[in-house]
Amino acid sequence: MSKLTDVPKRILIGRALRSDRLGETLLPKRIALPVFASDALSSVAYAPGEVLLVLSVAGISAYHFSPWIALAVVVVMFTVVASYRQNVHAYPSGGGDYEVATTNLGPKAGLTVASALLVDYVLTVAVSITSGIENLGSAIPFVVQHKVLCAVAVILLLTLMNLRGVKESGSLFAIPTYVFVVGVFIMIAWGAFRGLALGDTMRAPTADFHIRAEQQGIAGFALVFLLLRAFSSGCAALTGVEAVSNGVPAFRKPKSKNAATTLSLMGVLAITMLVGIIGLALVTKVRMAENPAHDLLRNGVPVGSGYVQDPVITQVAGAVFGNGSFLFIVLAAATALVLFLAANTAYNGFPVLGSILAQDRYLPRQLHTRGDRLAFSNGIVLLAGAAAMLVVIYGADSTRLIQLYIVGVFVSFTLSQTGMVRHWNRHLRTEKDASKRRHMIRSRAINAFGGFLTGLVLVVVLVTKFTHGAWVALLGMCIFYATMTAIRKHYDRVAEEIQAPETPSDDSVRPSRVHSIVLVSKIHRPTLRALAYAKLMRSDTLEALSVNVDPAETKALREEWERRGIDVPLKVLDSPYREITRPIIEYVKGLRRESPRDAVSVIIPEYVVGHWYEHLLHNQSALRLKGRLLFTPGIMVTSVPYQLESSEAAKVRARRRQDWNAPGAVRRGPVEKRPKEPSNKG
Amino acid sequence: MSKLTDVPKRILIGRALRSDRLGETLLPKRIALPVFASDALSSVAYAPGEVLLVLSVAGISAYHFSPWIALAVVVVMFTVVASYRQNVHAYPSGGGDYEVATTNLGPKAGLTVASALLVDYVLTVAVSITSGIENLGSAIPFVVQHKVLCAVAVILLLTLMNLRGVKESGSLFAIPTYVFVVGVFIMIAWGAFRGLALGDTMRAPTADFHIRAEQQGIAGFALVFLLLRAFSSGCAALTGVEAVSNGVPAFRKPKSKNAATTLSLMGVLAITMLVGIIGLALVTKVRMAENPAHDLLRNGVPVGSGYVQDPVITQVAGAVFGNGSFLFIVLAAATALVLFLAANTAYNGFPVLGSILAQDRYLPRQLHTRGDRLAFSNGIVLLAGAAAMLVVIYGADSTRLIQLYIVGVFVSFTLSQTGMVRHWNRHLRTEKDASKRRHMIRSRAINAFGGFLTGLVLVVVLVTKFTHGAWVALLGMCIFYATMTAIRKHYDRVAEEIQAPETPSDDSVRPSRVHSIVLVSKIHRPTLRALAYAKLMRSDTLEALSVNVDPAETKALREEWERRGIDVPLKVLDSPYREITRPIIEYVKGLRRESPRDAVSVIIPEYVVGHWYEHLLHNQSALRLKGRLLFTPGIMVTSVPYQLESSEAAKVRARRRQDWNAPGAVRRGPVEKRPKEPSNKG
Repeated sequence: MSKLTDVPKRILIGRALRSDRLGETLLPKRIALPVFASDALSSVAYAPGEVLLVLSVAGISAYHFSPWIALAVVVVMFTVVASYRQNVHAYPSGGGDYEVATTNLGPKAGLTVASALLVDYVLTVAVSITSGIENLGSAIPFVVQHKVLCAVAVILLLTLMNLRGVKESGSLFAIPTYVFVVGVFIMIAWGAFRGLALGDTMRAPTADFHIRAEQQGIAGFALVFLLLRAFSSGCAALTGVEAVSNGVPAFRKPKSKNAATTLSLMGVLAITMLVGIIGLALVTKVRMAENPAHDLLRNGVPVGSGYVQDPVITQVAGAVFGNGSFLFIVLAAATALVLFLAANTAYNGFPVLGSILAQDRYLPRQLHTRGDRLAFSNGIVLLAGAAAMLVVIYGADSTRLIQLYIVGVFVSFTLSQTGMVRHWNRHLRTEKDASKRRHMIRSRAINAFGGFLTGLVLVVVLVTKFTHGAWVALLGMCIFYATMTAIRKHYDRVAEEIQAPETPSDDSVRPSRVHSIVLVSKIHRPTLRALAYAKLMRSDTLEALSVNVDPAETKALREEWERRGIDVPLKVLDSPYREITRPIIEYVKGLRRESPRDAVSVIIPEYVVGHWYEHLLHNQSALRLKGRLLFTPGIMVTSVPYQLESSEAAKVRARRRQDWNAPGAVRRGPVEKRPKEPSNKG
Repeated sequence: MSKLTDVPKRILIGRALRSDRLGETLLPKRIALPVFASDALSSVAYAPGEVLLVLSVAGISAYHFSPWIALAVVVVMFTVVASYRQNVHAYPSGGGDYEVATTNLGPKAGLTVASALLVDYVLTVAVSITSGIENLGSAIPFVVQHKVLCAVAVILLLTLMNLRGVKESGSLFAIPTYVFVVGVFIMIAWGAFRGLALGDTMRAPTADFHIRAEQQGIAGFALVFLLLRAFSSGCAALTGVEAVSNGVPAFRKPKSKNAATTLSLMGVLAITMLVGIIGLALVTKVRMAENPAHDLLRNGVPVGSGYVQDPVITQVAGAVFGNGSFLFIVLAAATALVLFLAANTAYNGFPVLGSILAQDRYLPRQLHTRGDRLAFSNGIVLLAGAAAMLVVIYGADSTRLIQLYIVGVFVSFTLSQTGMVRHWNRHLRTEKDASKRRHMIRSRAINAFGGFLTGLVLVVVLVTKFTHGAWVALLGMCIFYATMTAIRKHYDRVAEEIQAPETPSDDSVRPSRVHSIVLVSKIHRPTLRALAYAKLMRSDTLEALSVNVDPAETKALREEWERRGIDVPLKVLDSPYREITRPIIEYVKGLRRESPRDAVSVIIPEYVVGHWYEHLLHNQSALRLKGRLLFTPGIMVTSVPYQLESSEAAKVRARRRQDWNAPGAVRRGPVEKRPKEPSNKG
């Protein structure tokens, strides 16, 4: 298996894959699972704690609701996985929820899903890294004492890695994810064995703590609301489930089947881990409070603001393996690492979604093609900046950040499933084959239930979380939506403006002759090269043009011109104010006025230098002039580059840039034809 | 006189002068005096105070040395003015001290002078604005309570004005400068009249204060050192004297004679004002201390840190006119305004010097030509940034800033005068006419004495001020010197590299044929225009080139190409990773490998848009590609612009930019032939 052996090289060098090695980039299921599921699986590291936190508002007695809430989350998880199994079969192109919504519900629904997903990427980074820091902090106190600093540092590290273009490697994901999954399973099994077979009493570090209920004797509607809120928080476990549906093209064949199997496997793993961790948390008497400093009592006294509330998973690990034991440390490290990888999936997922949105002209076109490092870099910096901002604003508190997280996920779940129902309806209208029809009706039922349930959860989330932070996520979605709409409108307007007329005759007057002008400041190699090239082009007339900013220099130029016998007429423009651009522009405009049917070709010798500070010393006048000439109709501007020795440095840099790996290359898979909505054409 | 009537328009609109109105920009003496002398005249607002401050170290009794120190400063002023009168006759081209030093003492001396002048410009801004704020503060307490803030605000305002390109107007200078001069003369005359004729006892606000001598019973070497230090401070009055010698081309004819007359007039005014103010300060018993909070005693008690020490000129005005009287306010306002104008001269003087240095390739070439707003803007921002930094570091304390100021001035005085001696020596070697020789010998004597005296002052300044801050100025000079040397070296290296060979044969192989490629992504107006233009150029072969990043789009392109019957062959490059740049670069390189004697012309259709955000949405791939192509030898890159409707907005902006007035346009005067050192040629 070549994938595992050349990992170090890939990480260190990150060489771009050549097209003849294309097959290799397709992922087997055992690698695809960690690549696409690290986000979903890692969320079991924080979801159980969130449930307990919310329940603690009603006091310790409310903890007994937690199995029921876990059950509800499991039902949703089961439904969502079953629904997305339909998606990957019906839409194997990797467009994911965006494509499903766009195709079946129209571009506005699609754009809503896209906005929700973009917000999700930001929150995936913020929540995963914050949670990873908290898990790491249970082993290394320094980290949790400087949460914001450490979280921002990890964001910075991931950003730099992705800007430099470290290749997303399947194996990079595989090892920590499997260590994490196996670790959690060993913990559950060992915990069950100790509890059931040995009859040990395992006690979490917080088992002796008491919780002061914020609201005593809560009942009726208030209780229902609290349980719904706990359920909403538990649904954080579902984040990342849709990732597989975006990655179908990266799977080995049969792609859809393999993707569906991976999805099921992921669902089973996530459900087992979630239930196991909540079960062990109850058995080991983990105590968590929303506001621990005030509501968590040690010997009847609040623990105070110095207390750090460890995540459920590390508390359980402490109880089962022993605090600070080898397995405890391994699990804490693997959890943190998986969470950081989950954050990294956002860095990789963003360009993939960006590429699709760019193809539909909701984002700048250059995001569609690979290797446009600048465009990707801007996206990555935007993503990292927004995530870092949220981390700082919310003090790297994963509980507060999670309030924002779940809205976007369920917006896209709901719209996607609704779209799938329409999809099946449409196909059922034309499908005659009875067995296929039966299959479709079954799929439709699954998607319909999925859409209904996720829609219900969305309502619950919105109602219970709106004031807790969900409004921030909605605001973010609106901003993305408005921006993308504006970009699309601009592209549409331009496309209309530049649309080629069907008959060539109704285009504006075609030029019939070309008048070429070579700009000359001195006689040196770049000028001579430009003159030689200009002669090759055999334009109708050719002249050299210089601007007199210094009479002495101009005189010397004229003399050398004659001495060398250059057979191109030299024209000198006067410039009493030592301007260069204006006299040339005016001369060119004059030419155009005299013979409007002629095109003017302006040929500029340019130095090519290697360092940015050299750019400041050269070509500035040429650049300014070019910028101005472009606004004059009927002009072509030709650069004849002359490579100075120092340009070698830039050449090496450019080559290195070219070999840069765009984030998301692995999960995007090779180019394949994607069905497009008709309105994108033309 | 049209200058005064269209001032408001000039200030508001700042229209560039057309070349046929060139004569108008030449300045009559009555306008040239305030334009070039505001810097020198305004320094009498702070110089007298500095003398008293230093003397106060030895206690109040040392004040009786101040007339002698004033006399010494007057002697130096007289000498410097007499010396520079020789300069303006011998070097009427506006190159000033830099030119004199370069021509007569060599490029290193010239560069030293240039570095000193650049440092001076920074300090002119810092010192003048700080002092202006202090003068304004004597009338408006808020200003002096927020000195640093106000000083930075004024720097910002001047910077914005100059960035926007408000035209330097002679009349803008004339009114406040004349008000200031007339005000000071009225004050001196009225003071003399009251004191001598009426026998009034005029008392400054600080007349009752006592000064605690920092060093009691100072005598011998220590006293001499203190007196020398006081003299150094008094020499601050000489800053700005050299401005006239840089501005000779802006004078009306006879330029040199008018400039010399203006210089004399300025000298007489400055000397009278300086002596008058020091005299009145002694009569009205102005008391100032270097460290007023501690050493200035009111009723035997130190005044404390809350005390604000007003400048000598406002204290004297208070005594003569009455504190808060109408004339007091007018004089304070005029003083502040003149000081701000003096700061503005640095904004205008910098580009003039920058242009000359750029011509000698010590600074980026584009500073030489006018209208390169970006280059000027960078310079202005650099100047303002450095001045603001100094103001903040030194807490807007003019006394501390002046310690830095005088070094640079006297470095350029000394080198310039030494250069002038050499100038006369050289001319005397060839001159035969006896009357001319006599004249030259007289001039040489003046310059020799000037060089000796200013050199002596430079030594005194360095010895007495080095630890007080002069080292900062020297450090700044070293930085400028090193930077400019490096730039010159770079240009020299490039010039050597690109030097045209004398015989064309020893140049590299000339291309014999051109293969043209039109890049096509879709068929629209820009593409059709590029194709039409490419056909006009009649290259040897012509083909259209597209990159297949999306099979559906490529197929549509091929079909439309055929349907329209475009008679240029279309070649499509495959790009499995949706890259654009790499396949094209490799294709072009392949062409060059196949036929190394052919040149390749790459023609790129470009959209021209009007707003920066539209740039983000268009041409990015084209820009990247162009950037990469420039590094490939044997290539020309042609842009065929297509102006979208929105480009109109940018056109308007560009036109506005073009009409921008480079700072220093007035004092630079029209282009004239400037003798150049031979090494600058070629």
